[in-house]
Order: sequence, then C-alpha cells, then structure tokens
Amino acid sequence: MREAVPTVWLNGELRPSGEPVLQALDRGLLYGDGLFETLRAYRGQVFRLEAHLARLKRGADVLRLASGAAAGGRDAVVDQARYAVQAVLRANELQDAYVRITLTRGVGGLPYELDQADRPTLLVTARPFHGYPEELYHRGMTAQLAQIRRNDTSPLANVKSLNYLDNVLARARARARGFDEALLLNTRGRVAEASASNVFVVQAGRIVTPPVTEGILPGITRQVVLDLCEARQEPLDVPAFLTAGEAFLTNSLMEVMPLVSLDGSPLGTGRPGPTTAEIAQRYRAQVRLELGS
Amino acid sequence: MREAVPTVWLNGELRPSGEPVLQALDRGLLYGDGLFETLRAYRGQVFRLEAHLARLKRGADVLRLASGAAAGGRDAVVDQARYAVQAVLRANELQDAYVRITLTRGVGGLPYELDQADRPTLLVTARPFHGYPEELYHRGMTAQLAQIRRNDTSPLANVKSLNYLDNVLARARARARGFDEALLLNTRGRVAEASASNVFVVQAGRIVTPPVTEGILPGITRQVVLDLCEARQEPLDVPAFLTAGEAFLTNSLMEVMPLVSLDGSPLGTGRPGPTTAEIAQRYRAQVRLELGS
Repeated sequence: MREAVPTVWLNGELRPSGEPVLQALDRGLLYGDGLFETLRAYRGQVFRLEAHLARLKRGADVLRLASGAAAGGRDAVVDQARYAVQAVLRANELQDAYVRITLTRGVGGLPYELDQADRPTLLVTARPFHGYPEELYHRGMTAQLAQIRRNDTSPLANVKSLNYLDNVLARARARARGFDEALLLNTRGRVAEASASNVFVVQAGRIVTPPVTEGILPGITRQVVLDLCEARQEPLDVPAFLTAGEAFLTNSLMEVMPLVSLDGSPLGTGRPGPTTAEIAQRYRAQVRLELGS
Repeated sequence: MREAVPTVWLNGELRPSGEPVLQALDRGLLYGDGLFETLRAYRGQVFRLEAHLARLKRGADVLRLASGAAAGGRDAVVDQARYAVQAVLRANELQDAYVRITLTRGVGGLPYELDQADRPTLLVTARPFHGYPEELYHRGMTAQLAQIRRNDTSPLANVKSLNYLDNVLARARARARGFDEALLLNTRGRVAEASASNVFVVQAGRIVTPPVTEGILPGITRQVVLDLCEARQEPLDVPAFLTAGEAFLTNSLMEVMPLVSLDGSPLGTGRPGPTTAEIAQRYRAQVRLELGS
C-alpha cells in the first residue's frame, strides 16, 4: 500500500524507485535534518501546490537549509520541487495520487554546521491515492489523548521536519488501543493537534482552531478551512475541547474528517455534526473550483 | 572532516561509501524512524562496545524496531552490528576512530504501522578520530542555555533516535553566538543535558547528574563516570547548577570535558576544576585498563 510508483525524482533526474538513492552520510538520515511535504493530486492536478512549496521554503528558512550558492539557493530548490512533482506524476501516469516531497540538507559538515553541506537532497515520490473510505466520514474518527506532548519550545513544532517519530509513535499507540488517531497537547497542557492532522472545534456556532503559537504545524488544509469559514485561531484547553459541539480534523489527504470521541467519551453527540459536514462540502467544492474539474 | 572512510557496512556487506545506500522509502529518512550509536575506537579497539549494543537493543525495544522474523529479531541485528563495527574498522585499517551505527525500521507500512517493514536497515560508517584538542580540556567548554527544551514527555528522550534535529539546532545557535555547547532544560525547567553530552556538577564534594526520568539520554560515558566515582542521580534545578563548584560534560568522543560557564557567567571559578580533572584521569585510565593498552 505504501509502495512507491516505479519512478522517483532525485536531484534533477527521474530514477527507478527500486535503486538506492541516498548517501550513507546524508544528514536527512543522520539527524532527520530536512523537511517534507505531503500533497494530494486530483485527476493529475495538485491542490494548493504553491502553498505547499511556500511552506517548504519557510521551513528551509527556519532550518537555514539550502542556502548555499552551489544549490542556487532556496528559490531554485523550490522551483525544482515544483517541476519534479509534475514530472513524477506524468512519468508514472498518475491521476489521483499522494505525492511526497523530501528535502534534506545533504551531505557534509559537523552536526551543528548548518552551512557546510554540499547541496541539498531533493526527493519526490508518489503513489496512487483515491481518498479515505467514505464510510469513515460517516462514522467519524476516534482519538486517544497522547501522553507524548507536542514540544512547542522547539522551532520544529511549526515546521514539517523529518523528525516525525513522536507523531508516528503517538498514533501507533492509539491504534494499538483501537483508536483512529492520537490527540497531542502542547507542553502547557492545551490542545495542539492530532498526530497527522490539525484539529478544529465548533462551539456555539464559532469554529476554533489553535493558533501557530500553540506549537502546531500550520497545515495547508487548515488554512483553506480558515479562509472558507472564518474560523478563529484561539488557544484551546481540554475542558473546552471536551464540551465542544463538534470537532474535526484536517490534512491534505483526509481533507475534513469528523472527530467523534476522545478516550471513548463522545464529543458533542458522538456522531459527525452538521457544521463539519458543511465545511467538508465547501472544502471539496473549493478543490473542484480551483482544479476546474 | 566528516568524510566517511571508503568502506561502509550495509545490511550484511561491505560497500564503497560513495554509492547511494538507502531506498527512497526507508523510514529512517521518511520519519527519522531509527536509532544510532556513536562509538570510539582506540588503537583498533572499541570502548564499551557491548554497552552501546545493549543501548541499541533497548532503543529497538522502545521503538518496536527489528522485531520481525525476517530479520531474525533484535538479537540477530545486534550480533550483525557487533560484527559490522569490527569489519568496518578492519576494512578501512582504522586505529583511532569514530564509528557510527545507524539502524532504521527499513521500508514499508503506513506511518503508524510499526511491524510492517520488511527488514531493518543496518548501516555502519567510520572515520579517523584522535580526540578533541588538548587545549580545549585546559580551558573548558562554554555553554548557552537553549530555548529549546528537552521533551521529557516523549519516549524518544531516553533513546538515541534519528530525531536529532533539536540537538543540532540548539548547538548551532549556541555556536553562532560564540559558545561551545547548548544546555537544555526539560519541560519542567530543570537541567537535562547538553546538546550532545550528559552533564554533571560537583557540589560540596558530591558529584551529581540528572536521572533518566529527567528526560535525558542514558550516556555510556555517563554510566562509566557513575561507576567510577559514585556520583548521584538527582534532579538538578538551574539555581543549583549555577552555584555548583564545578561542572563537566561527558560523551564517548569528548570523554570528560570541563564546562566552565553558562551564558557567560562562570561556573565555580570559571576554570576547569580539580575534581573534573581527577575524573577525566580515572576515565582515561579505565579505557586503558579495559582495552589493555
């Protein structure tokens, strides 16, 4: 299910995916020193490609990645990523797809020497993806409150870095106990996000999601929803979360997904709510509008 | 300076280091889903190899890594790592060396599916290393208090995982301001460790280091020092740290390194202290004793 399609992009060329592509001393492997983006293509067109590329560039700014002249700087890397995404989709004749951009600092330098690597590694992979099962949207996802907190003292909290193992472990633990997702608090004990998605609540007609300062990843789908329904960005404590009328999750792959319980306690009615359904519809309409399909 | 020597170990064989070794979908790259160890060889012999391998195995237990039958289980991986370390040293005719073991979950599975990867990736690299300059031990290191906290709510805090970018960034920021190291607090505001080393203080003749429950990596050198000088493991708050008579850092590469200031304020006399010097001597004697050189 996670198989790459046959052809991937590596540093300027299309390559068979079975071949090894990464050097032993690539800092992406050594320290998780890099970034990624996950994008969704509908009928061959990537939704909000420019927003993903802009976030990739902001992440590179934070990590001081790809600043070297040899690489042509961050703009050149972003330009190459834009081209590579289309090239990988075309080369594999993919219509509905999951696309991943991985950008590492490359090889070189002592661990703390951020500017000594030769050139960044840019890798683009893809696989067919047709969306989550519709029945999941009808029943909604369940979540477990994770023991792992989101480290909002780190600049990585706001960046989609390759240091992703806390998210993986939090979700694996939740899944092992029969939950779909894990909900992470920040170090101040307030709601941050789910393991692989942003979180919203509906409270007395107001739509609320935690602001970036709460240690969240600024999701692309989150921003679309913010724009579509005038949601507010406000800190969200656990009591407020538990008493919300509705809750939902967002990311590029699942779009807008109802969240119906936390640790077995129903959120609102314990069933997907009407506001969530309305927002999910608006999101899909926006996708169709922008991609002209 | 960080160049690999010509030959590396990958999954059972010696390979030229210039060749790409890692698959595009290796989880070590995708999520930092793996572990590493850094070891030091003196005259061709690795100090405390078994302790490093035991920590690697404990880390694999925590991450549920390399549990599959296809891989022969964790013991088989550890056995292979033991063999590979010696093979890489021999193949490159290295005497005094830095050796790195990297173990990833390999390729496969959805992000949260910890048991679906085919087989772990084991990579061993090495390079010549003759120790830090002696003059650094004479003047001692300076540290900056990092803004990034050590996330002691995560199981990764006690594991040497590939999610190492917080440490890299904390130290890079400290170095950019003229400090040698970064000192990280945990989320409770107490002293945890430095970016790449454990920390000890000497207070009225007592030698103290934070316990594992403070969110620290249980360092191999730290354990040697604990055994050699009956140090205590106690939580360490910032005021106690600042009023200590001496402070020092430990890791396998730097051994026992005086720490003489924090944010420009001297620790103790602001010069390497006699207890630190005594412990450093004992440590080097222990290395000679165990390696018979």
